[in-house]
This record gives sequence, C-alpha cells and structure tokens, in this order.
Amino acid sequence: MDEYDIIELLTRTAGRLPAGYSPIGDDVATLPSSPGRLVLKADMLVGRTDVPPGMTWRQAGRKAVAMCVSDFASKGVSPQALMVSLGIPRSLGEKDIRALASGFRDGIDEWSLHLVGGDTNEADDVIIDCILAGFTDRVVGRGGASPGELVVVTGEFGTTSAGLKILLEGARSAPGFRKAALENVYKPSPRLRPGLALRGFLSSAMDSSDGLAICLHTLAEASKVGIRIDRLPYARQLEKFASDNRYAVDELVLYGGEEYEIVGTVPGNKIRQAEAAAKAAGSALIVIGETTSERRIVTAGGRSIEKRGWIHLS
Amino acid sequence: MDEYDIIELLTRTAGRLPAGYSPIGDDVATLPSSPGRLVLKADMLVGRTDVPPGMTWRQAGRKAVAMCVSDFASKGVSPQALMVSLGIPRSLGEKDIRALASGFRDGIDEWSLHLVGGDTNEADDVIIDCILAGFTDRVVGRGGASPGELVVVTGEFGTTSAGLKILLEGARSAPGFRKAALENVYKPSPRLRPGLALRGFLSSAMDSSDGLAICLHTLAEASKVGIRIDRLPYARQLEKFASDNRYAVDELVLYGGEEYEIVGTVPGNKIRQAEAAAKAAGSALIVIGETTSERRIVTAGGRSIEKRGWIHLS
Repeated sequence: MDEYDIIELLTRTAGRLPAGYSPIGDDVATLPSSPGRLVLKADMLVGRTDVPPGMTWRQAGRKAVAMCVSDFASKGVSPQALMVSLGIPRSLGEKDIRALASGFRDGIDEWSLHLVGGDTNEADDVIIDCILAGFTDRVVGRGGASPGELVVVTGEFGTTSAGLKILLEGARSAPGFRKAALENVYKPSPRLRPGLALRGFLSSAMDSSDGLAICLHTLAEASKVGIRIDRLPYARQLEKFASDNRYAVDELVLYGGEEYEIVGTVPGNKIRQAEAAAKAAGSALIVIGETTSERRIVTAGGRSIEKRGWIHLS
Repeated sequence: MDEYDIIELLTRTAGRLPAGYSPIGDDVATLPSSPGRLVLKADMLVGRTDVPPGMTWRQAGRKAVAMCVSDFASKGVSPQALMVSLGIPRSLGEKDIRALASGFRDGIDEWSLHLVGGDTNEADDVIIDCILAGFTDRVVGRGGASPGELVVVTGEFGTTSAGLKILLEGARSAPGFRKAALENVYKPSPRLRPGLALRGFLSSAMDSSDGLAICLHTLAEASKVGIRIDRLPYARQLEKFASDNRYAVDELVLYGGEEYEIVGTVPGNKIRQAEAAAKAAGSALIVIGETTSERRIVTAGGRSIEKRGWIHLS
C-alpha cells in the first residue's frame, strides 16, 4: 500500500464525521472550536519498544490510541479529535496495515473520538504518533495536592508487569492470572470514564504509564508534599506469581509501567462521593495512602520509595 | 541524554510561554481557546528519507517545523502552538540532540510559534513528528477554483530538485546555482507570511511539498476543473544545469518535491491586488496558467502533465 492507499484507508476508518469537521485529506484538519481551553497531547508508539511479542497489529493500533487517551483521562478531559502520524516499514503488508487501521477504529469507537487527519511516511520501524485534541473549562493538574489528603488509584498494579515478564522473560503463571496479565498487556484500558467522573474530586492526578513510584514522586514534587503509602494496590494472585518466579512484589507494583491507571489525590471529605462516582463509571477507587507535609515518599514502615520507573533512553 | 533530560531541554527551548499556556511537562498541554475553527496538522520527518547528506541536525530540526508550517501557510492560517513528538536513536549524542532543539527554536522564532509539549521515545531512526494547532475563521480549501481563474505559485520550481540531484546523484553545477540549490534543500522556506496575505484572494490552494504536478492534479480534481499551464516557473540557470547533466527541465520542475511553495488559484479580477499583497509579504506571485472547464491538466501545447510526484511507500 502506498501513501495514497493508506490515506484512503484512513478516510474509510474515519467514517462519517460530525457537521463542521473537514473531511480527511486536505493539508490541515479543521473542526469547530469550543470555548475554554484547548487541550493537546501527542504520544508516540514505537514498534520495537511498545509492541510486545504476540500483540496483533490491531491491538497495537488500539494501544497507540489508548496511550494518548490515558493522559486525557487523568486530566478529566474528554478527547474529541484524533490524528495519526504514521511511519510504516516497506516490509509491512497490506493485511497488517489494515489491521492497524482496525485498531484505530476500535479506539475511535471505544472512546468516542473523531479521526480528523494524519500523515503517512516510510520508516524502518512501525511508528504511530497519536495526537488528541479536546476542549475543557478545567484541567486536573499535578500540583494541586495539600498535606493530609488521600492518595488514590483507579485499579491494581503489577499485573501488567507480570504479563510483560511472562512474555519477555518466560515467567510461569497460573492460567487464570496469566490470562488477566496478558489481557492487560494486549488490551490496556485507560480510565477515561472514571477520569471524567472524578474530575470534580481530584486535587491532583496523572496517568501511571511510567510506573506507580514515578507517579507518586512526580505528584508530590509538583504539589510540594510528601506521600505515605499504607497499602500497595495489587491483585491477590500477584504474590504467588512473584514467589513462584522469585520477583519482589514491590518491584512489580511500584516500578513497572504500561499500566494506564489514574493516580491522584482526593480531600478526605470528598472520598465517599469520589468512590461512588468512580464506581458508577466502571472503576474502583482504592485509597493507598496519604499526602504529608514531610516531603518524603515512604511506606507506612518508613522505607523510602525510589524515584525510578520507565524512562526512555535511560 | 535520557527522556527527562530531553524534556528539560525542550522546556528550555520553549522559553517563556504567554499567559494562560500550561508549562511543558504535564500529561497534556493546554492553552486558551479562540472562537472559530480549530486547525490541526501533523507532519513527520524521518531521518532516512527527509534528512539529505550534509544537512546538520539543527537544519533538520528547523526543517521538521518548516514542513508543518508550510501546510498552514497554504491554508492562510497562522499556526500558534507546536508540539514535537520525538523518536531518538540511542546512538544520537547529546550535541546532536541539542542541535535538533536549536533547530526547533529557529522555527519557533521564525514563525512566531509556542512550543507547548511533546513526547520522547527511543527509536531506530530520528523521527520528528511536528504538530501545529491554530485558530481561524476561514480556511482556503482545495476545492474552490472555478474555470477561467488564474493558476499561481509563490516561487520558482526545480531548484530544490537540482539541489537533491547535486547531493544524491553528484550532478555538476555552476557555483552560484549550486549555492542556491543547496540552500533550498537545507533551509526550506515555507510561505507563511505570503499565505496569510493571500488568503482573501485565493479561491483554492495547497502546499507543493509533493511536487508541482501532483498539486495541479489535486487542486483540479477537488475543484472539478482542468488546468492549462502556459509557463513553467523555474530559475533561468535551471536550463543550463539540466542540459549539463542531461536532465529534462520539465521533470525537475513538475515532478520534484520538497518545495514549500503555495500553489493556488486567483480570480482574474483580483490578481493585481494579490500580487501586491504577496510582494508586501516577501514573495513573488507567478501566474503559470489558467483553470479550464475541460477537465485535463495540460501544457499550452496540449501535452498532458502526468499525475506523479513524491508518494511515500510507492
């Protein structure tokens, strides 16, 4: 497929756009503006680092969109317009390119997006840069937490790390947990609906795709607070998986990555409402600790949590 | 340099942002919305295909921005916010990464942009996906030409093709022309000011980066007209260069690429004003032919101009 075939494929993938949106294919994409603030995000998927063994191209296409949606989710903003900038190796066949487009379509349907444009290039590896735009009156920032608030997450950690260990290091696992772990890897679930439902309750938040520990450090630094973690949020089966394979549970939970949860802070007096809102939107809201005035990131036992996680090019 | 060093470098590159812009580094970038239409464009530079021999990384960084600005120029829209999504090979040293950032800064200064965010990844080749956003009340489309209008371009064609032939095929050239040709390759000049000045006069327009012939076909198809070309726009020295190296002039002018001119149509009664507006904005406006009701793309002699040019993955 050449550039023009791919543009045609993306045009079909976009389907019918709402009134006022420009059709795909002109030099620029245009859509009606809304009042408030314009919100933009670009997130690049690179085949070599972001497509683990066994992931289909359809799953990769969906994952590229998911990675970008997750950032909007954590800020409590609804993404509206999607662009995809592609680098395609000459070796990638028509069937695989169509599968990528089906994956984009999965993301478009799942998160109610509109594909408005893109760019197609030849590259040595599959590169999918997803760009999202939306409008909002308010964004949940990273720096809004005060001491004495609750630290919350929208789901458990470590299961995706386990999935990557199964795929990349041949770790053994009970069948049920293996299935859940691989599902997390192949079909990441950004918390868009919970993020939108929680935006009135979160004093600070970010997306956890670089790992839980690095999130805690980043939120704490931006908010000029410390954090005490009372409870590590992980699935019960993770303990057996860790001991069977001689991994440390803490390591899997704190320093993994590729987990698209929201990590944030909620004032204590809003936590019941926030929990109800998250539940209605389809996710848990797990309290894992508290912000403190002493600017350290520690466990309840006083052990330091290191600032370490997934850092590209490190 | 790891991801965090690069984010810090980009933050310094961004400099001081206007009031109401979010600082670089949060999960998303935000800026004040404006009424009218949101305009978006992504354009990906790939090291292997878009960085010719002898181009510095600083020039490559500027070129990545230029490629994207050119699309806004042809639509008569002022770009406002820039994001850069990067794929960086581990082999690229700190000096080269800093040079890329200096190139972004050159583009930011030259076209009055604000760098609001980006994404940093490891990749096998240098990938720079530039994303621009702006607001407008009106976009010059591709489909607005009627029969009997003048076909115009903002500059001469073929010189950049000659520069690429000098670099890639060892073509010989007189020193003066060589200098101009290489300057075109290394320092492309999108016609942003002329594009903004011409927007009230152009009935249709697009950016010529895939070649003049493909532009003429695309505008004609979108506008449901034909085009008769009376005069090929090229520099006088191109004839000697072509005959010295046994290239056909037409081939260099019509089927090259990487030339960031605006190709468009202007109703005859507006041409004097349009020429004056282009001149005041620093560019020529060359009439090269006329739109026709007979839907063919031909020279004055009746010879067909083929629909052919730079098509990725072809």
